[in-house]
Amino acid sequence: MLDAMTDPYLLTPGPLTTSATVKAAMRRDWGSWDSDFNAMTAEICRRLLAHANARDSHACVPLQGSGTFAVEAALGTLIDPARTTLVLSNGAYGKRLAALLERMGRPFEVLDSGDTAPPSPRAVAERLKANPAIGYVAVIHCETSSGILNPLAAIAEAVAAEGRELIVDSMSAFGAVPVDARRTPFLALVSSANKCFEGVPGFGFVIARRDALAAASGRCHSLSLDLHDQWRYLERTGQWRYTPPTHVVAAFRQALDEHDAEGGVAGRLARYTANRDALVAGMRRRGFATLLEDRWLSPIITTFLSPAHPGFDFPRFYAELKARGFIIYPGKLTEVESFRIGSIGRLDVAVIARLLEAVDAALATLGVDDCRPAA
Amino acid sequence: MLDAMTDPYLLTPGPLTTSATVKAAMRRDWGSWDSDFNAMTAEICRRLLAHANARDSHACVPLQGSGTFAVEAALGTLIDPARTTLVLSNGAYGKRLAALLERMGRPFEVLDSGDTAPPSPRAVAERLKANPAIGYVAVIHCETSSGILNPLAAIAEAVAAEGRELIVDSMSAFGAVPVDARRTPFLALVSSANKCFEGVPGFGFVIARRDALAAASGRCHSLSLDLHDQWRYLERTGQWRYTPPTHVVAAFRQALDEHDAEGGVAGRLARYTANRDALVAGMRRRGFATLLEDRWLSPIITTFLSPAHPGFDFPRFYAELKARGFIIYPGKLTEVESFRIGSIGRLDVAVIARLLEAVDAALATLGVDDCRPAA
Repeated sequence: MLDAMTDPYLLTPGPLTTSATVKAAMRRDWGSWDSDFNAMTAEICRRLLAHANARDSHACVPLQGSGTFAVEAALGTLIDPARTTLVLSNGAYGKRLAALLERMGRPFEVLDSGDTAPPSPRAVAERLKANPAIGYVAVIHCETSSGILNPLAAIAEAVAAEGRELIVDSMSAFGAVPVDARRTPFLALVSSANKCFEGVPGFGFVIARRDALAAASGRCHSLSLDLHDQWRYLERTGQWRYTPPTHVVAAFRQALDEHDAEGGVAGRLARYTANRDALVAGMRRRGFATLLEDRWLSPIITTFLSPAHPGFDFPRFYAELKARGFIIYPGKLTEVESFRIGSIGRLDVAVIARLLEAVDAALATLGVDDCRPAA
Repeated sequence: MLDAMTDPYLLTPGPLTTSATVKAAMRRDWGSWDSDFNAMTAEICRRLLAHANARDSHACVPLQGSGTFAVEAALGTLIDPARTTLVLSNGAYGKRLAALLERMGRPFEVLDSGDTAPPSPRAVAERLKANPAIGYVAVIHCETSSGILNPLAAIAEAVAAEGRELIVDSMSAFGAVPVDARRTPFLALVSSANKCFEGVPGFGFVIARRDALAAASGRCHSLSLDLHDQWRYLERTGQWRYTPPTHVVAAFRQALDEHDAEGGVAGRLARYTANRDALVAGMRRRGFATLLEDRWLSPIITTFLSPAHPGFDFPRFYAELKARGFIIYPGKLTEVESFRIGSIGRLDVAVIARLLEAVDAALATLGVDDCRPAA
């Protein structure tokens, strides 16, 4: 418990709790021009491609910055500005896709399914049939603002059937939720170091179809975010175009080793699912309700409705849990009071059990004896 | 020596060799939403502003990504698109300023002084008098492609006298070369974590005048790189807009402590200058020549001309030095064969002395007994 007191568990969807060995991999300085570092970059890209079964068709292009930078880079580089993008939105990250396109002046439409329901593949198909100007569909794989896991395979099928291109923001899912480029066709899939692969934050990456990357010279609105340039430079020199976060990259290679040791995507999904199941069952036993129906709960993060009890106050609840070694996440919904608890990162059901004890202690301190939400 | 063999010294202008304690500061995971992390961000920004004596007039806005991302953000956010920017160019980083402006479709002109001479403040003044459409001047403080230290104070004076705004890319100089916003007026100064403050790479920062930041709402071509948004969000919530590189930020705070302990900018400048002097004197004793005249040599990095001796081969020289624990930098000039050796990072004249021994050993292996360049 002492460890957790000084170094709290992050029950958040990235940055998250990483292993001591991942962090220890940062105790070396690397020359960003040196062949040893170049080999590390190449290895990481090769391994990420393999996890998406995309080696023959796609390239993996890492990009400095947060995951949003990589999403903006993918949209700015890979989308033909003459064609419209249909954004499937059911939360804050879907809205961000629209905001990114709006800022760069690209035509887009939004299909909004609200905060608690996934996009309907049938509605997507209808929208695509109705508007031939739509060239692309952009979707969030796991929308962490609610915790919903969107039905990627069915959406990809609908998009492919209409001959359009799919861009997937799989920030918080890739590495734990299986994705196979041969069965789920996509133009690009974007993710980042500090999510289900359990690295530390500092770069994102785009798994993008090579033909589209090759056709995108000079298209991006930003030089720093130009994925085509980054890809070409990597291919030619083995180096990132601009200074990479070398220590973060080294930590990520270690994180990939630990991902393999756990059984890859399947192993990680099993642990996260067990975490989520223990969390949801434990919270429900205490009277808490989840925002979503069971079938849409992701193994990544779960939104709980705030208790209606007048003693419940999120900042105090947060502080009580933090004092006991657990950092949780505020809600990100506008319509209902809620908070979120993640199930990803270097933690298991024993940690969830301790969290639930901390929840009991926090509720006792707040004098909350009924955790049911407002009816 | 064993340490250096397994973990080579980086004689490069960032990433560079950092202290063991800076790297050890990365052995904790931080919640990016948590107040402890927010306090760390605020502290870093406050301390950086103080180093530029800019607390009253400017704000410090950190940005995820490499230093180039921060430069693009400053240009894209702070420059009125209706006005022309005069880019002072004398190397690769000056050319990059022009490339950034070109990509974002902003009007610019270039005043090129070649690879080995600084921009002339008088020529800048003349250009500004001749063209009232020029609203901004952008300059590289230390142009590491040659190692030249440009005369910032004189340029700033010329720009201010003509009533224009100055943007300084001080990537590789800030922290070791004094900058005082009250005496050297600037609109924005851009630098990054992994240069003279001796942090690890992963973010940059812009010290920008508050009035200009406030006036820049919605102007940036990129949402991820929008400094106005990043600033407003930080002011309102204490948080970075998108996931920050938490471990890199923690390392940077430790690096600031060590910078203070060394006597701040003055202490660091003294050590880097001693490193450079020992390096240049030692290399000259061996017959090497510097690209630049003494008066333009920076304390950051020095370019040496490659020996004309037929046995000299840069990749072999590099490999021999690397095998002895030293990573140097290739040249970045198109007209003459050269290589570069940095004098920044966690190293002192004792390390430079060992480097010079390694140079002797490398030259002996290559059979080079005359280090003079081609006449």
